[in-house]
Amino acid sequence: MIDLSRIGMEKGRQYETIITTKNEDGSKNAAPIGVICAGDDKIINRIFKGSHTLENILREKEFTVNITHDPELFKTSTLGNLNQECFSKDYSLKICDAYFKCKVISFTEAIKQSDPIKKKGEAIVIKSQVTDIVIHRSAKAMNRGFGYVIESLANYTRFDLVDEQKKEEYLNRFREANRVVLKVGTKEDIKAMGEIKKELIKKGFKP
Amino acid sequence: MIDLSRIGMEKGRQYETIITTKNEDGSKNAAPIGVICAGDDKIINRIFKGSHTLENILREKEFTVNITHDPELFKTSTLGNLNQECFSKDYSLKICDAYFKCKVISFTEAIKQSDPIKKKGEAIVIKSQVTDIVIHRSAKAMNRGFGYVIESLANYTRFDLVDEQKKEEYLNRFREANRVVLKVGTKEDIKAMGEIKKELIKKGFKP
Repeated sequence: MIDLSRIGMEKGRQYETIITTKNEDGSKNAAPIGVICAGDDKIINRIFKGSHTLENILREKEFTVNITHDPELFKTSTLGNLNQECFSKDYSLKICDAYFKCKVISFTEAIKQSDPIKKKGEAIVIKSQVTDIVIHRSAKAMNRGFGYVIESLANYTRFDLVDEQKKEEYLNRFREANRVVLKVGTKEDIKAMGEIKKELIKKGFKP
Repeated sequence: MIDLSRIGMEKGRQYETIITTKNEDGSKNAAPIGVICAGDDKIINRIFKGSHTLENILREKEFTVNITHDPELFKTSTLGNLNQECFSKDYSLKICDAYFKCKVISFTEAIKQSDPIKKKGEAIVIKSQVTDIVIHRSAKAMNRGFGYVIESLANYTRFDLVDEQKKEEYLNRFREANRVVLKVGTKEDIKAMGEIKKELIKKGFKP
């Protein structure tokens, strides 16, 4: 059954995945890319121009999204290239928890709205149809929201214990955490951040 | 079987949980507290003096550790008090994914070493024996490490695209992320952060 909720994905939220694609020479490529769930069987990606992944998707019109919580896979595919032996024949990653196959529906020029770096025409928005889901073991796609809620709560409890400089640092952290949660988090994460913000305002801060 | 690895806990690593305790008047108390896994059936907590949770544990010598990824539970138990209806008769939280019961082995005066606020004698280290584990549904205790690895990798990819001020901000973020990962993360998280640090040094930064 093609239903992204099977791997913990919720419509409108963004997940951290590793996308694998076919290079022009037939070799395999992997890169960490955010995936926005756009329904049971549809996703959206915004990918910066200039990346191999984007070139490969523009050419092949299909790609694989791998679900994993392995820091080594994320680190290596960001800092360099994964060894070809990490890939299965079908272009998925051998040690991922789950993966799904996508076919592109549309490409659109765009800016990466919520990124710290905004330049018009710098990214392409790709809408895709999920054509197959394979689950190796019970897996939930990585969502960054909850971690920021926990960090914001931990810092909130220390506000009254630290000096002005540290308070300013915590406020900056809160603003960044809130920016990310609004972009990627679940409704519950967003609600929690809103209430932490209210409490900070009550204390006289400007979060 | 009493084995904390059943809920994803690994020796030496710290997890974000909600600890529930019995107040002096018999009512129920909940607070978000970090739990360090000290083996299959032992945990360690460092708790600031002055907290209700600490008072309750010093008096009762037992407590309950709840495993949940619910931002609402974390938010409410940090900013205020959970409604008594949120608790089961056995003091666990009704909607947690899993919980375990603990009996105190020892109390030790300490400073909270790795915290931004360090004052001697401000915390108590509690070592406890796990006496029972109840799993409502497949659950992994929340560990903050992986989220910081992902954030550090995302910022790393933007280093060459941003101005000096933003670079400094990213470096500060990296330092804080690395501090937390060294404290709470898995071996794999710590290794990944070490390699990101090496790459930043290669680029001429001082992370």
